[in-house]
Amino acid sequence: MPSYTAPTKDLQFLLHDVLNVTTSDVPGYDELEAEFTGAVLEEAGKISSEVLTPLNAVGDTEGCRFENGVVYTPTGFKDAFEQMKEGGWTGLDMPEEFGGQNMPYVMGTAVGEMFSSANQAFTMYQGLTHGAASAILAHGSDEQKATYLPNMVSCEWTGTMNLTEPHCGTDLGMMRTKAEPQGDGSYKITGQKIFISAGEHDMAGNIIHLVLAKIVGGPEGIKGVSLFIVPKFMVNEDGSLGARNGVACGKIEEKMGIHGNSTCVMNYDGATGYLLGDEHKGMRAMFTMMNEARLGVGMQGLAQAEVAYQNALEYAKDRLQGRDVTGVKNPDGPADPLIVHPDIRRSLMDQKSFAEGARAFILWGATLIDAAHRKGDKDADGLVSLMTPVIKGFLTDVGYDMTVKAQQIYGGHGYIEEWGMSQFTRDARIAMIYEGANGVQALDLVGRKLAQDGGKYVMAFFELMRSFIKENSGDEAIDRDFMEPLKKASKDLQASGMYFMQNGLKNPNNALAGSTDFMHMFGHVCLGYMWARMALAAKAALDSGTSDKAFYETKLATGRYYMARHLPITAVHLARIETGAEPVMALEAANF
Amino acid sequence: MPSYTAPTKDLQFLLHDVLNVTTSDVPGYDELEAEFTGAVLEEAGKISSEVLTPLNAVGDTEGCRFENGVVYTPTGFKDAFEQMKEGGWTGLDMPEEFGGQNMPYVMGTAVGEMFSSANQAFTMYQGLTHGAASAILAHGSDEQKATYLPNMVSCEWTGTMNLTEPHCGTDLGMMRTKAEPQGDGSYKITGQKIFISAGEHDMAGNIIHLVLAKIVGGPEGIKGVSLFIVPKFMVNEDGSLGARNGVACGKIEEKMGIHGNSTCVMNYDGATGYLLGDEHKGMRAMFTMMNEARLGVGMQGLAQAEVAYQNALEYAKDRLQGRDVTGVKNPDGPADPLIVHPDIRRSLMDQKSFAEGARAFILWGATLIDAAHRKGDKDADGLVSLMTPVIKGFLTDVGYDMTVKAQQIYGGHGYIEEWGMSQFTRDARIAMIYEGANGVQALDLVGRKLAQDGGKYVMAFFELMRSFIKENSGDEAIDRDFMEPLKKASKDLQASGMYFMQNGLKNPNNALAGSTDFMHMFGHVCLGYMWARMALAAKAALDSGTSDKAFYETKLATGRYYMARHLPITAVHLARIETGAEPVMALEAANF
Repeated sequence: MPSYTAPTKDLQFLLHDVLNVTTSDVPGYDELEAEFTGAVLEEAGKISSEVLTPLNAVGDTEGCRFENGVVYTPTGFKDAFEQMKEGGWTGLDMPEEFGGQNMPYVMGTAVGEMFSSANQAFTMYQGLTHGAASAILAHGSDEQKATYLPNMVSCEWTGTMNLTEPHCGTDLGMMRTKAEPQGDGSYKITGQKIFISAGEHDMAGNIIHLVLAKIVGGPEGIKGVSLFIVPKFMVNEDGSLGARNGVACGKIEEKMGIHGNSTCVMNYDGATGYLLGDEHKGMRAMFTMMNEARLGVGMQGLAQAEVAYQNALEYAKDRLQGRDVTGVKNPDGPADPLIVHPDIRRSLMDQKSFAEGARAFILWGATLIDAAHRKGDKDADGLVSLMTPVIKGFLTDVGYDMTVKAQQIYGGHGYIEEWGMSQFTRDARIAMIYEGANGVQALDLVGRKLAQDGGKYVMAFFELMRSFIKENSGDEAIDRDFMEPLKKASKDLQASGMYFMQNGLKNPNNALAGSTDFMHMFGHVCLGYMWARMALAAKAALDSGTSDKAFYETKLATGRYYMARHLPITAVHLARIETGAEPVMALEAANF
Repeated sequence: MPSYTAPTKDLQFLLHDVLNVTTSDVPGYDELEAEFTGAVLEEAGKISSEVLTPLNAVGDTEGCRFENGVVYTPTGFKDAFEQMKEGGWTGLDMPEEFGGQNMPYVMGTAVGEMFSSANQAFTMYQGLTHGAASAILAHGSDEQKATYLPNMVSCEWTGTMNLTEPHCGTDLGMMRTKAEPQGDGSYKITGQKIFISAGEHDMAGNIIHLVLAKIVGGPEGIKGVSLFIVPKFMVNEDGSLGARNGVACGKIEEKMGIHGNSTCVMNYDGATGYLLGDEHKGMRAMFTMMNEARLGVGMQGLAQAEVAYQNALEYAKDRLQGRDVTGVKNPDGPADPLIVHPDIRRSLMDQKSFAEGARAFILWGATLIDAAHRKGDKDADGLVSLMTPVIKGFLTDVGYDMTVKAQQIYGGHGYIEEWGMSQFTRDARIAMIYEGANGVQALDLVGRKLAQDGGKYVMAFFELMRSFIKENSGDEAIDRDFMEPLKKASKDLQASGMYFMQNGLKNPNNALAGSTDFMHMFGHVCLGYMWARMALAAKAALDSGTSDKAFYETKLATGRYYMARHLPITAVHLARIETGAEPVMALEAANF
């Protein structure tokens, strides 16, 4: 049975040594003293390890059960959900006026990583609710906020997002679900939505569905899509629950993973809905929270990689198999532990250097979102919007690969469900797909974000790399191990951008054929940048005579590994990109 | 529900245009006329698509059932197994004297790919039997051959391989299963074996277990391991079945995939066993068939990649989503098919160029095995032994990645079990683990095979690349698209070997830290070599005015893609390798 220990120390290092949150002028950051954040993380880690982790395998094995329109969650989920509510974990970064704790988003993200590592399927129930509540917070009328938010912030009621239909996922302009105005401000919603996470379950008094639909008679395609609030139970004026609305779960899906979360077909049969935001502006309303939602999914990639790594590491230390070729390490035992073997070590270093780099990247992204939301910092907003597809696509692609590496360390035991390593890969797999499949992330990055505001944000990113390297050069070892590789990788990224500019106008496929390569190389540059920042922080701590030398020296060694063994891949991505559309598009579809 | 179409045309192209089997002087190859191989492949394709494919999802969903020591295979498996027996598919490359058809191994491999694509879990029952029968064929006494082989070749009886124990897999020297001589030539076998594929099931009259065990009083460690034949039912002198032997299945495992194959815990409780081959030479006997067994697993990596690709391709042609940015392709439909999108195309080209390259690599390897076995060609044996860990490790690592890519094309539907794409990834995952985990393959390659016979075979491999490029250069397009990239990749591989030689002596970890990188770059060079050979064959066909221009032009385009977009990765593997042991081994185990 896998275990999980929250990476509290690493998170504290990032918040305070690397990101220096308390020196930020973002409103609320002054309260993030190390003692305070340490206490929050400690408590979150405790509930993660003690309450959520033991339910992870239960959720996977039992799954959800569908009977007569009702979905039953796995044994123990209900109790755990109550504990999450009682602990106030559901509204950490929500406004106090609706019952939240008003902490910055960066704290919600740090804590969210723990919950996701411990139990991704379970954490999705509150994650989806958070997303739906954020949409109502951003676009709802005062009345809508008052009606729904207090119960959603506390997770008395949960929320969902309804986008996909059987014939359309990415291309939502083809949507068929319709909304008929009733003259009283309400609409009748009719249609079928699929892949609705937490669409129906037994842990909440009400479920508030946010549903994309087309108002009858509105514009064709994506421009005619509006967003609606459709409660499972109608809410009376006094806040009590009324009649059941015309929405029901038709079935739940059998999936590769996240069995503990119900993935529902939702049938809307003239259900009463209320417009959220403006008519025909549904996509815009849905996408207000996109950066956060996608960062949250990128975080899931990290979270599964982290917990899988922790367990692989334990196994590598415990399992005795073979001898260290450079000399026996465990002379009293029948063999040495796996961790003596260089190829096992390589795999563990891949996992460790990814997880710590990804964690830094995500928290940095979260501080940019806080700067955008709490301070109205447009540059931060532009930068994080540019990087959002990278955070989502790169971290979930690589995060998944890391769970596979972790599973591999177990040998045959990794394939047996009892050991739990298979679940990490099966659960991690979904993050590459939902919230915009990773190919769509790459398209968003290359087809939209690069050129946004005349390329302003990608220029700013390159300038950030340039000035960072310039300002922090001078130490021989740091330059050699961190700044030089970062400079090289950053140049490869710039050369790719240049290739797109010069060749994409002629034929956009010259850019799009390299979109996934570009997203991945961008990810490596970001992780390289974060490792350089972590290295500087570690060096500063060592120079100042820290008492925790091992921690900071380990940081430096782990960073060196990432820079030396992973950053060089940018050259290959560049080489692929520079082959352009021709090799990719050479075949007629019929000749495949 | 996924479908499968056997790649008969591609196999024929490889056998006849690329490998020119009929011109070989390997005994039996003269019979492999195109008409004959075409007829065999056609029939094998038919039974694969019509009988095995429909049972693939059944096997996954139902799995095997264990009740009171009996294992029940999924619905339909028994009937299908009868059809395989009746068709003579179980003994294709076995000697005629034991009921086989005496075809070369290359034919068994070509047909085996189809069966594995169609239903890996099912095909394992006969695959394991084939392996056990091969061991008896190579090491058994005449009496043992006569007793077991006819029924094993026909699959009236099936076979197993028993190596792993709970505390040891790779490190078999730690084995505890013991064999006590009974004075009558037989032994009493006692111990527990785990992960025994097809260890118990309801499709055969008898199960012949090959079991590694230590003869009491023999040498310590791996040098005291012997191989035994332990039948489930004793075999009487007249060939009829006698009493049940002291071996039983204790439980079957819940696994990530290959649910249709029973993975058994086998308990030996004083079971009667017969020495196969020499005392204390069990590992050697087991490993006689290693090249074949590992090539067979590498083939499974290809097989799952192939069937996953076929279904991803169908979906990409059918599913309408979004519009071609260079101009609408399906004006009468609500959207264009997925295949118009460059990033989808990239993924499909990755899959197609891998599958066709891997198929060529495997068949080439199989011809080398035939040359070694049928003609006693020691050079062929050395070369294929060198490449065996590459075939197994590289093709299963990349094959798995390809199933993940295929699944990704389905978006959310790829995660739902009903669509079948998840099963391909879950089934493909095991091939990276069993028959020696891929890290062990890399260790075998770098730690053993490179230096074998003074490095003779790796030198021969480099000489083969050099002379091939030299002899086939001269055409401008072929040189630019194939020979130059192959030369470059081959040089990177040579440089890696040089690094190992120069630095491995000082510290073997300098070589072992780069073992997986070396295995992968070796794989890319081999696939590059095969693509260059295929390109030459395609060009020759086009030059001679073939009527099937589209097929050969597609070959060239697919090969160009692989050379341009995949071969450059060798530079990164070299860069990683040249960082040596330091970054990999920098941390103390306690500091992870």
